[in-house]
Amino acid sequence: MDLNIQTLTAKFNTPLHLESGRILESYKTRYETYGTLNEDKSNVIVICHALSGSHHAAGRYQDEAKPGWWDNFIGPGKTIDTEKYFVICSNNLGSCFGSTSPMSIEPRTNKAYRFKFPVLTISDVVKAQMQLYKHLGIEHVKAVIGGSMGGMQALCYSIEYPTFADTYIAMATTAYTRPWAIALNKIAIEAIRHDPAFKNGMYEKGDLIAESLPGLAIGRMAGLIAYVGPNSMNNKFGRNYAHTDGLYELFGRFEVERYLEYNAYNFPKIFDPLSYLYICKTMNIFDASRGSDKLPDSLANVQRKLHLISFSDDVLFFPEEMEEIRDIMIELGKEDLVTYKKIESEHGHDSFLVEVDKFSDHVKAILKEIE
Amino acid sequence: MDLNIQTLTAKFNTPLHLESGRILESYKTRYETYGTLNEDKSNVIVICHALSGSHHAAGRYQDEAKPGWWDNFIGPGKTIDTEKYFVICSNNLGSCFGSTSPMSIEPRTNKAYRFKFPVLTISDVVKAQMQLYKHLGIEHVKAVIGGSMGGMQALCYSIEYPTFADTYIAMATTAYTRPWAIALNKIAIEAIRHDPAFKNGMYEKGDLIAESLPGLAIGRMAGLIAYVGPNSMNNKFGRNYAHTDGLYELFGRFEVERYLEYNAYNFPKIFDPLSYLYICKTMNIFDASRGSDKLPDSLANVQRKLHLISFSDDVLFFPEEMEEIRDIMIELGKEDLVTYKKIESEHGHDSFLVEVDKFSDHVKAILKEIE
Repeated sequence: MDLNIQTLTAKFNTPLHLESGRILESYKTRYETYGTLNEDKSNVIVICHALSGSHHAAGRYQDEAKPGWWDNFIGPGKTIDTEKYFVICSNNLGSCFGSTSPMSIEPRTNKAYRFKFPVLTISDVVKAQMQLYKHLGIEHVKAVIGGSMGGMQALCYSIEYPTFADTYIAMATTAYTRPWAIALNKIAIEAIRHDPAFKNGMYEKGDLIAESLPGLAIGRMAGLIAYVGPNSMNNKFGRNYAHTDGLYELFGRFEVERYLEYNAYNFPKIFDPLSYLYICKTMNIFDASRGSDKLPDSLANVQRKLHLISFSDDVLFFPEEMEEIRDIMIELGKEDLVTYKKIESEHGHDSFLVEVDKFSDHVKAILKEIE
Repeated sequence: MDLNIQTLTAKFNTPLHLESGRILESYKTRYETYGTLNEDKSNVIVICHALSGSHHAAGRYQDEAKPGWWDNFIGPGKTIDTEKYFVICSNNLGSCFGSTSPMSIEPRTNKAYRFKFPVLTISDVVKAQMQLYKHLGIEHVKAVIGGSMGGMQALCYSIEYPTFADTYIAMATTAYTRPWAIALNKIAIEAIRHDPAFKNGMYEKGDLIAESLPGLAIGRMAGLIAYVGPNSMNNKFGRNYAHTDGLYELFGRFEVERYLEYNAYNFPKIFDPLSYLYICKTMNIFDASRGSDKLPDSLANVQRKLHLISFSDDVLFFPEEMEEIRDIMIELGKEDLVTYKKIESEHGHDSFLVEVDKFSDHVKAILKEIE
C-alpha cells in the first residue's frame, strides 16, 4: 500500500495570541500527512518534530536522497501504520521549512520579521498546530508522539489539551530545559550572532548564506556533540584518523572531526540561522510548570496516558529528567496514567531517531491499547 | 612561613628533538617555584598544569585579584606543604605564559612561528620540563602531580621517566583522549579559525585581539561547559534568569548564560588563540600507548606508584577512563603500583581545582608514604 504522502500549507488569518502577549495576525503552517483520514476523522496520529526536523517525517520526494526523518517508524505496515492511521506532522511555527518564521514577511511592514519576530513557547507552537486540526475538522486524535523538542510538545499537549488524544508519547525529552542544554545552545547563539555573514540578522536569504555561515555550523556542531554523546562516539569513531587536507592538516583530523565538519558545514545549506536562534530560545524557556508554577500542578492536568521513553546514554536530556516526571505522576496518584521505559541505547540522544527497533514493540503495544 | 614564590625563565640553546621529528633549536621555559630547595635537592615536587593554566600555581602577585590556580592545595602547611617541599610548576611548552609558543620568535626567520610552530605531544612538553630539572641540577623528585592535561603529563612521566619520581598522581585525566573530548575541542578549533579577528593566525598581539576574539571565547565556552558539567550546573544555576541588556535581550539570559558569557569573553584577554589551537591538538593526540602501540605495553614501564584520582561527575574525562588504567595495571600484575580513588564530586571536571578538600587527605597520605 502507498504511503499517500501529501505536503500542504494552511494559511490562517485569525490572530494567534502568544504567551508573550504578542499576536501573530496571520500565519501559515506547512504540514505533511500520510495514510488516509477515515470518514469520522477518528484515525489521526500527530507527530511532533525536533529542533532541526521538519514536517517531512516519512516517505521520499522525487529525487530525494534521504527519506523523512522518521521514515523507519511511519509507513504502511510500520510501527505507526499508515494503513490504519492518518498521520499529521506540522512544521513547527518558527521553523524554516514553510511555516511562519523570523524570515517570513511581516504583513504590517511588508518586510521580513527578523529580530522583530516574537519569541515563541512550546505552548505557542502547539497552539498553532491545534488551529490546523480545527481547520481540518479534526477534534480528537488517537495519539501525539514526539522526541526531543517533539517530546516537549507531546508533554505540552498532555497537560494543556489533556483529552485531545487518547494517548501521549514523549521520548528523549524533559519537563523543563536544564542549564546543561541551555549552555550547549549558548554556543550556537554566540557563534551565530558573532558570524559576520549573519549581519546581525540582516543577511539575505540565498546562496551566500547557504554556503558560508560558520556560526550556524559551529552551533550545529555543539548540537551534534550532544546528540551523539560519548558512548556512541567511542563506538563510531574511536581515535581513528580521517584524511586531511590543506592548511589545517597541521591539526590533523580525527574521524569524529570529519563527521562534525561534514554535518555541521552542510547544515547552513538547509537551515536558517534566525530560525535556529528562535528555536533554541523556545527550547531553553520550555518549562512544563509554566502557568501553574509547580510541575506537579501542571501534571495534575494529565487525563490520558502519558508514556515516557528515555534512552540510557542520552546526554542532552538525561533519563533522570523523564524519571522525575514519572515520579511526580506517581506522587500525584496518577500511576495509572503514566508509563516509563528506559531504552538501553547506543546512540545517545539520537536513539529516538535511529534505534527505532528498540522501542517499536513498546509503541505498538501502546497503540494497541487505544485501538 | 613564607611561600617563597619565585617566577623565573630558563633559556635553552640545546635543541629539543620533538616526537614529530621537528626540532626546536632553542626554547625557553617559564616556571615558578615555592618553598626552598634543600641541600641535596631531594625535596622537589613537580606540579603540571592544565589547558588554560600556567606556571602560577600558588601565591598571589602584588595587586593580583586571584591567587594561583592551585593555591588551595600548595603552600605553607597546605596539602603540598612548601615548608617541606620545593615545588616547581612550569608553563607548558606551547602555552602562552612565557614558555616558547606559536607566537614566539622563530630564530631562523626572526618572525613569530604562528602556524609554523611544530605540533607538540605531551611527551614533548614533559621532555622540555626534564631539561629544566637538569638545568636546575635536580635528578630526582618526590612526586609529579597534575590534573586534566596536567594528569596526562603525570601519566607520561610515570611511563617515560618511571624512576624519576617516587610517586605519580594523575587526576581527572585519561590515557588517551576519546572522541568526545576531541569533539568538544573541535568547537574551539572551528570557532577560532573562522573568527575574522584571528586572520588565519596572522593577527597582531595586543589590545584589538585581547578585546575582540569571539572565536576563542566560543571555544572557551565549549570547554567551560565540559568542565562544569550538568550536575554542577543544576546546582549552581538551575533555571534562574540573569539581568538582560540590549539587542539580545530577546534571547533572555539565564544565569548559566551569563556565567558562560562572563568567563568566555574575558578569556581572550589572557589567552592566545594560536596557543589554544596547539594545546587542543596536543591534548587530542595524547595517547599513552604511543611508542609501544598498546596501552598495557606502555603501562608495563611503570615502576613507582601511580595514583589515579577521578571525579564522579566529570563529563570531560569520565571515571571509566581512569578505571581502565587501573584495570590494566592489575592485569599486568602491577596492583602494588596502582591506587585508584573516585571522589564523589559536585563540580564536574573542575573538581580537581575546587574540591581539594575531598582529596587532600588522600594526597597527604600518599606523600606520607614517600617521606
